[in-house]
Amino acid sequence: MSDVSDWWSTSIIDMEPGRIALRGHPVQDLIGQVTFPQMIWLMVRGQMPSPEQATLLECALVAAVDHGPQAPSIATARMAVTCGLGLNGAMASAVNMLDDVHGGAGEQAVELYGWIKDAVASGTPIEKATEQAIDHWQSERTRFIPGFGHRFHKPEDPRAPRLLSLVDEAASHGTVTGEFAAISRAVQTVLNTRKDKPVPMNIDGATAVIYAELGFEGPLARGLFCLSRSVGVIAHAWEQMQQGGRNKGPTPPDYRWTYTGDSENKDVD
Amino acid sequence: MSDVSDWWSTSIIDMEPGRIALRGHPVQDLIGQVTFPQMIWLMVRGQMPSPEQATLLECALVAAVDHGPQAPSIATARMAVTCGLGLNGAMASAVNMLDDVHGGAGEQAVELYGWIKDAVASGTPIEKATEQAIDHWQSERTRFIPGFGHRFHKPEDPRAPRLLSLVDEAASHGTVTGEFAAISRAVQTVLNTRKDKPVPMNIDGATAVIYAELGFEGPLARGLFCLSRSVGVIAHAWEQMQQGGRNKGPTPPDYRWTYTGDSENKDVD
Amino acid sequence: MSDVSDWWSTSIIDMEPGRIALRGHPVQDLIGQVTFPQMIWLMVRGQMPSPEQATLLECALVAAVDHGPQAPSIATARMAVTCGLGLNGAMASAVNMLDDVHGGAGEQAVELYGWIKDAVASGTPIEKATEQAIDHWQSERTRFIPGFGHRFHKPEDPRAPRLLSLVDEAASHGTVTGEFAAISRAVQTVLNTRKDKPVPMNIDGATAVIYAELGFEGPLARGLFCLSRSVGVIAHAWEQMQQGGRNKGPTPPDYRWTYTGDSENKDVD
Amino acid sequence: MSDVSDWWSTSIIDMEPGRIALRGHPVQDLIGQVTFPQMIWLMVRGQMPSPEQATLLECALVAAVDHGPQAPSIATARMAVTCGLGLNGAMASAVNMLDDVHGGAGEQAVELYGWIKDAVASGTPIEKATEQAIDHWQSERTRFIPGFGHRFHKPEDPRAPRLLSLVDEAASHGTVTGEFAAISRAVQTVLNTRKDKPVPMNIDGATAVIYAELGFEGPLARGLFCLSRSVGVIAHAWEQMQQGGRNKGPTPPDYRWTYTGDSENKDVD
Repeated sequence: MSDVSDWWSTSIIDMEPGRIALRGHPVQDLIGQVTFPQMIWLMVRGQMPSPEQATLLECALVAAVDHGPQAPSIATARMAVTCGLGLNGAMASAVNMLDDVHGGAGEQAVELYGWIKDAVASGTPIEKATEQAIDHWQSERTRFIPGFGHRFHKPEDPRAPRLLSLVDEAASHGTVTGEFAAISRAVQTVLNTRKDKPVPMNIDGATAVIYAELGFEGPLARGLFCLSRSVGVIAHAWEQMQQGGRNKGPTPPDYRWTYTGDSENKDVD
Repeated sequence: MSDVSDWWSTSIIDMEPGRIALRGHPVQDLIGQVTFPQMIWLMVRGQMPSPEQATLLECALVAAVDHGPQAPSIATARMAVTCGLGLNGAMASAVNMLDDVHGGAGEQAVELYGWIKDAVASGTPIEKATEQAIDHWQSERTRFIPGFGHRFHKPEDPRAPRLLSLVDEAASHGTVTGEFAAISRAVQTVLNTRKDKPVPMNIDGATAVIYAELGFEGPLARGLFCLSRSVGVIAHAWEQMQQGGRNKGPTPPDYRWTYTGDSENKDVD
Repeated sequence: MSDVSDWWSTSIIDMEPGRIALRGHPVQDLIGQVTFPQMIWLMVRGQMPSPEQATLLECALVAAVDHGPQAPSIATARMAVTCGLGLNGAMASAVNMLDDVHGGAGEQAVELYGWIKDAVASGTPIEKATEQAIDHWQSERTRFIPGFGHRFHKPEDPRAPRLLSLVDEAASHGTVTGEFAAISRAVQTVLNTRKDKPVPMNIDGATAVIYAELGFEGPLARGLFCLSRSVGVIAHAWEQMQQGGRNKGPTPPDYRWTYTGDSENKDVD
Repeated sequence: MSDVSDWWSTSIIDMEPGRIALRGHPVQDLIGQVTFPQMIWLMVRGQMPSPEQATLLECALVAAVDHGPQAPSIATARMAVTCGLGLNGAMASAVNMLDDVHGGAGEQAVELYGWIKDAVASGTPIEKATEQAIDHWQSERTRFIPGFGHRFHKPEDPRAPRLLSLVDEAASHGTVTGEFAAISRAVQTVLNTRKDKPVPMNIDGATAVIYAELGFEGPLARGLFCLSRSVGVIAHAWEQMQQGGRNKGPTPPDYRWTYTGDSENKDVD
């Protein structure tokens, strides 16, 4: 049309008055015909998934909706509504916090698994490829291996084995190859050996297997985690709205914080 | 446990090491067993919906995922990733903008429909109840009747009749009563008559019918719209990441803005 | 220039390659010549303030920078950096929460004072005007009178009398009229009488006097409070960065929350 | 006090009923006594600056307040208020976008300058240290050297030479050493030579000199830039509030976007 229109070009949506087409599908042909996970896939990937692919994606979306109000994102959502925000604002303040440390492990695990896959594809045995990938991660990034270990769920995060078993099942039907499930288990074996105790795969490590098996790139693993956790955010924010409260702080008011500075400062007269 | 634990009480999630229960269901019993819309319902409502209820909710979630990059939320999401934000940050900046004007019409329509329902329950004929509710809305709130009219989709928003027909179908099976569908049509009739031309029901007016039929309160209509539109937000942000760009502005750089102030100001010497 | 340029018209800034003019002033003539409060005033009001006006504004900006980590905004900022966000993201999540309840009292107080001023201008005695305005606020808005009362600082918020005395001083020099200081004291008198105990003016009530005396409209009272509190947000977020931590929750991890739901739910088999 | 209080320990603020002390200073002793830039410094650094130090900081804060509505942050702020957000929400959505690409150059320039300073301190001549630092940045980070070059302001960003001259003046009075001014000029010389044309220092490169000279660490350069730019954000959001508009998009509605996908998609029947 024009340089102005071209500035905002997209292959996602086409519109005319009275017509909305998403990835080439008139919206009224999608409503009532496709599931929400199919719609999510169609929007971010561009093609309609098979029902089996969508079902496996759905498992990941269901699994990650909430981990309770000690998570900073959920605490923020609950505090937000007592400050006057609506659910959109509560969700914004909360989802923003799903950054590298709080919401990035899935994306990072997809990347780590990808390194191992590439090394295996180049002929390195999977055990060695995994050892090297873990070493590389710890020297280049951080000592935390994304997707493994949990400060709370010991010895096992109940979501991980359930998700892995669903990947295995999908692999047995040819929906996915199962290669990332194998890679994730190799990572766990290496970590268990090194730590001399179980280092359980957590929700991020397990959903990353699903996202990688289904061909989602790392950043989308984060994006879809944000979508899933938004469900918990909305549920908690809404529960807090009903509980009421004004300017809810992190602890009961009587506890106040501990002041660690000097008792007096004489800089200004 | 203690006053500190009680400060963050919730009926949504219960946790012990190795155990996560959502609304009383161990999470591993939900994964692979319930759909994502069922999970959403369970989390925000507290009870598991019937499959038919979940399917109708799913229609509303599918319908509202995107309306293109001229929507300020989507434009913001696309600009955000060119500023260095990940998908969590893009989603936060975008969803925040789904406030009263951009994302609140569904919530408002649920409220308006509720007024009419209450008046009908008190014995007022639906036509009169609708006239009065519209008058009351325009005198107490704003001249914009939430959920009706569209500056772009004329004469019809293609999503609305499709959604209404699915509500009718659900009503014919007894999944919902259909009373809010009737109310929404009464609103449309009054508006068409007053304006002397069609004032089409839009996506917010139609999804509000679904949310109200299913018993969701107004604020959740907004919350679930935010969840649905987040799909478009993620899709657009991800597409923009792949297109690249740095500090993408709203218009091509050559256009700059129009300065409307004085050419010189002599306040300071 | 064009309809596209006109879409983003502004009287705030004019630019050409190598030239930036803010409200008509070349930026290089402002740098090193005007104070930051003068610059803030110039940007939001369009004209350069007198030094005395800027100094009074500065008092309001200095007074509101922080109220500690039990404020939900500050707690959010501190948690945010442990989730991986930079200071921009921490500030965003935090400032977002300065909504009607947490950051809107200044704006509301400016409005309340304005009602009283208008009534006095119409000939109503100030005592009666104040009584009526308070009644009207409580019947139309909420029982909380903005800018008065504090759950923590009893009997007095130390910032309020200091700020009021500076307004009095400015009034004695003719910088401001002092009419809003008088109005705020009338509000305090009415509240003290009604409650039969002191209802101290708080930071919002006092800064609102300054903003109103200086001619700032209500929404700017909120905006400038956000700017002021951002200083505390940055200080706390930066301190937390140095303290470290990952995914800091609202309470020490051992406390967990109290689960108030059913112990088991048999909806799903 | 307790483990709960200790969870939120801070040296920034101490409070008792009726008492607020910031960095050891009772707040009422600061109000009306210190400037806003002094307060900012005190809060983030812990000590009161000299008037000369505060004045130099003030120059950086004044310089960066705005760069117009083609900046994605400002465009977002303006769109936000037309979606129903207050100034807090507009500021949040906007400041969030001041991430690595849009608001991180100052922080990055402080880091780059620091590399050069360390190399010079180890005996490397400044020219060679600068060459090496630039090479290292481009191989380890990105080809963009933070703080230099501007797609719009050619041949010169008018803010940079003004700020540098103020640093020189402060150095001549002993307020700062001037070493980072020298380093920044060495960077400019190298870049000019390599590019065979002027690569002008921009606002981020110049303010980074000030922040580094004054001893601010990199992340604070970003944080204080966010604070400064928030002034423009508030000014533009407020101007847009007065202009009105609902759901303002990035371009005039008639332009729509360019659809680049397929015209039809036959995935679903």
